Formats: sequence, structure tokens, C-alpha cells
Amino acid sequence: MSEVRPQNPDYAAAVAASFARQGLMQALGIELVDIAPGACVLSAAADPRLTQQQGFFHGALIGAMLDCAGGYAAYSLMPPGSEVLTTEYKVNFIAAAEGERLIARGRVLKPGRTLTVTMAEAFCARAGVETLCAVMLSSLIRVAAPR
Amino acid sequence: MSEVRPQNPDYAAAVAASFARQGLMQALGIELVDIAPGACVLSAAADPRLTQQQGFFHGALIGAMLDCAGGYAAYSLMPPGSEVLTTEYKVNFIAAAEGERLIARGRVLKPGRTLTVTMAEAFCARAGVETLCAVMLSSLIRVAAPR
Amino acid sequence: MSEVRPQNPDYAAAVAASFARQGLMQALGIELVDIAPGACVLSAAADPRLTQQQGFFHGALIGAMLDCAGGYAAYSLMPPGSEVLTTEYKVNFIAAAEGERLIARGRVLKPGRTLTVTMAEAFCARAGVETLCAVMLSSLIRVAAPR
Amino acid sequence: MSEVRPQNPDYAAAVAASFARQGLMQALGIELVDIAPGACVLSAAADPRLTQQQGFFHGALIGAMLDCAGGYAAYSLMPPGSEVLTTEYKVNFIAAAEGERLIARGRVLKPGRTLTVTMAEAFCARAGVETLCAVMLSSLIRVAAPR
Repeated sequence: MSEVRPQNPDYAAAVAASFARQGLMQALGIELVDIAPGACVLSAAADPRLTQQQGFFHGALIGAMLDCAGGYAAYSLMPPGSEVLTTEYKVNFIAAAEGERLIARGRVLKPGRTLTVTMAEAFCARAGVETLCAVMLSSLIRVAAPR
Repeated sequence: MSEVRPQNPDYAAAVAASFARQGLMQALGIELVDIAPGACVLSAAADPRLTQQQGFFHGALIGAMLDCAGGYAAYSLMPPGSEVLTTEYKVNFIAAAEGERLIARGRVLKPGRTLTVTMAEAFCARAGVETLCAVMLSSLIRVAAPR
Repeated sequence: MSEVRPQNPDYAAAVAASFARQGLMQALGIELVDIAPGACVLSAAADPRLTQQQGFFHGALIGAMLDCAGGYAAYSLMPPGSEVLTTEYKVNFIAAAEGERLIARGRVLKPGRTLTVTMAEAFCARAGVETLCAVMLSSLIRVAAPR
Repeated sequence: MSEVRPQNPDYAAAVAASFARQGLMQALGIELVDIAPGACVLSAAADPRLTQQQGFFHGALIGAMLDCAGGYAAYSLMPPGSEVLTTEYKVNFIAAAEGERLIARGRVLKPGRTLTVTMAEAFCARAGVETLCAVMLSSLIRVAAPR
């Protein structure tokens, strides 16, 4: 993607405020690590709340973090007064998510007035080595924020 | 799907035991409501932990429940000694998930020795009326359970 | 889906005219079999042009027919002067597509002013028996038709 | 992806032979441009057979080429005596595919004994400039080739 000029000069504050309102992200201890125009990084430390039946990070948690990382990457490029909604996403799991930390990196493939397409990758950090464990494509729609 | 004879006579206990080991499902208060050969129903009551930024059920939560409902539908048809892993899923969101309860119903479209394909639908219950709010297609792989 | 009243009284003619303009559908000998408000059926007879490396119907052909069946199901509900574009689709293949004829049935899960979500199923007919061989979820966007 | 050593020293010939047997690819005039371990490039010149209702490259054609580009990228890493089948794919369309030539580039994200995950991107070339017009994630399964 070439043009990544944010239409909202306060995009970082807008993303942080929206993220803070997400009860699910708070309940799971997920952190907003970085936000830039068209890109977002989230992170979560290993925790019993985040596991599947074998003790690895839960695929659905990975999906949730990828969804949010892509969503806020999209949101960062939207004009003030926008709200963002995911319309669909698809995730492929490619390695067991075992490690100390899960990191989700989302970026905008195609910004749009109505629809934005994003890609996001999840990495599992173990003893300082990051392994790609999942990848997502998603679509987000911009709607006017309720007053 | 026609043939839905479980290979594991104790499939219901196997599903319940696996579900109980999922820290994420426990942390979010998600309940296993029903399991039958090739079908599974999960449910969650509205709760601040489960919201997105507007107070609706979070799309990623919906994804998580659909993933698990499809996954346990698949698992119910697997032979004893199996473990199930999601290899990919895709969800389309079709209505805002506002209501008292979220219900995820998964069923097997195609059981397989290696790969199983499932479909799952999420409904939001509000004042006794259920609305379809999301639909998922997913692939699950059977692996031998670790001893 | 409950409400399936077409906004375009000439929806069937609009679908047929658009279908006839699709060079790909013509080149592959795909037929528009049925169109109803929110539903569409396409069909193709077995032909060497439509095969993959083992002689079965090609997965990409199945994807193409499902895409179009869902797309015209969506288009049938759009107001006059609309054009329809697929924004994304996902297909799961669940059985080898061997037989005399491939049939794709699409239907609208959720019509929308901007986005429509559809589901489509592909069946392979062999000696009079239909087997489900693939299933698709897709999103379509309505745009104003160019004059 | 780090390890891209082909297990089949004759992978290029195996891919070319399989591609030549695909009636659909031949019928549409799609060319196998390049094959390397874990990567494949296909290309098609603009042609009335390949259009949708507005005269652009048909989305389903783009899906077909992405599917094959990813599939042969996967196949290039499989041992001799393998056959490859797509189990699922998902494509997001991100720009109108208008131009002289469509190019599909697939690469392996994760090779596997059973399942391989690939990513593929479609570019439209117009007056020498390539534009990303679609992106795909797909899963392929290895099966033993019939004798």
C-alpha cells in the first residue's frame, strides 16, 4: 500500500479510546502495543484464560487478536466520526501457538471509503524467537459513529 | 449429512472433558448446551467481558464460539484417542449481535478420516426472538491425542 | 431469510442480461437454470474444458459457478440501476466433483443496501444422484450501474 | 518460509505435466510462467473469454488462477508420487481487474506432510504498471497419486 496518510490527525487517540471500550480485549488482558497509519500491533502474555484444551494459545483468541489488529489498522485511516465494523474474516492456522507471548500485526491492504481489506499475522514468541502461527484476511466497513 | 454414527460411544463425555480444559471458554463463561453426533450448541449470556466498543457481543467472541461449536461437532464423530484442531475458519457477520444471549450451533457438513468440514451459525436472542447474526465455514483436522 | 421481495420487478431480465454479458460463463458453457428473488441456480454439463488434472470438475470452476450463483441471487434483490460486485468469497470442497453435471445453488443470507451476504452449494449429479461437493460464503457490494 | 528444499528433484516437470492435464487452464489460455520450490506464477492475456459483465477480468477467473498458483506452489514441495487437492480457499478482491494481463503469484506459507497453506496475489498489468487486485489464502492436501 502506498498512500497511508491518516484522514484523522488524532487517529492514535481514536484507536486507543475505541480499544479501551472493548470489554473482551480487557477481559483477556490484550494490549494495544503500537498503532500507525494503516498498521496495528496487539500483544498478549500467556495466561490460563487464553488456552485451548492442550494449553496452547486458543485459536479463537488468535482469531480475536488478528481481527482487532486488522480492524484498528483499518480504523486508523478512517476520517473522524467513523466507526468500524468487521464484516468477515478468515484465518488459517499454520503452527501450534506455544510460547510466552502472542503478537498480532495487522495492516491495510486496501483502504476504501466504504470497505477496507486488511491482512494480519500472528506470531508466537518463545525464548525470543518468533514463529508465524496464523494469518488472516478480513473486510471492514466504515459506518458513521453514533452521536 | 446422512451418516452420523459416532465412532466413540463416549463422545459426549469426551467433548465435555475437552471443553472443560479450554481456559478461554471458562474465562468467558461460555456454556456447552448440547452435544449430539455431528452437532454441538454453545451459549453465552450477555456480559461486559464479551462486548465490543459499542456494547454488542464482540465479533471475535462470536468467532470463538462458532469455532468451538463446529470443532466439537466434528470431534463428536471422531474415534476414541483423537484430538481435534481447527486448521482454518471463515465467518461472515450479518447482523449486529445485540441481545441477552448468544447461541452458536455447529454441525458437520462432511466428516473425514483426516479433515472434517463444518458449518456453524450464531444467533442472538433478544426478548425471546432469535436473529441469525453470523455464519461460519471451518476445517478441522484429526490428530492422535497425546498420551 | 424472510423478506425476499424484489425491488426490481424486472429482476429476472436484469439477471439474464448481465449473465449473458459474462464472457467467462459463455466460454465455459455454463447455463442460468433458474432465478428467483434471492436465489439462483446455474448448471454445467461435464466437458473437457471444465476439468482438473484428474478429469473431475475443476475446483476453480466450482468456485466460479458458486460465485456467480451467489452473486445473481444477491443481484435479484437489488433495485433497478444497480451493478453487483463480489468483494470476497470462500469455498470449502467436501467431495470429489465427479459426474455428468455440476449444479450451483446460491441464496441470500442477508440482503443489504450496501453489502449482501450469500451462501451457495455445489452438487455433482451422477446417475441421477446429487452429492454436495462444495459450499461457499460470499459478500457482494452494490454499486450504481455505469450509464 | 525458510526451508524450501524440494523433495522431488523433478518438481518442475511434475508441475508442468499436471498443469498440462488441466482442461480448464488450457480452455482459458492460462500460462504457467514460472515454478520454483514453494512458488508459482501464472499469467493470462486479456481475452473476451475471461471477462465479467463489465469487461474486466472475471473475479472467478482470478480465483481460479490464484487457486492454481497456490496449488502448484504447494505441489512443488511435495515428494514424488503425490497428488495435490485444494481443500478450501478464500479470496478478497481489492481493485477492479482492468488491463492487458493478469498475473497470479502463489507461495507456500507453511508446507506440511498432509496440509499445506499458501498465499497468492493477483496483479493486473496495465500500461506496464502492476496493481494488486486480489489476494488469497488456501489449504491444499497431499494425497497419493493414483497409479
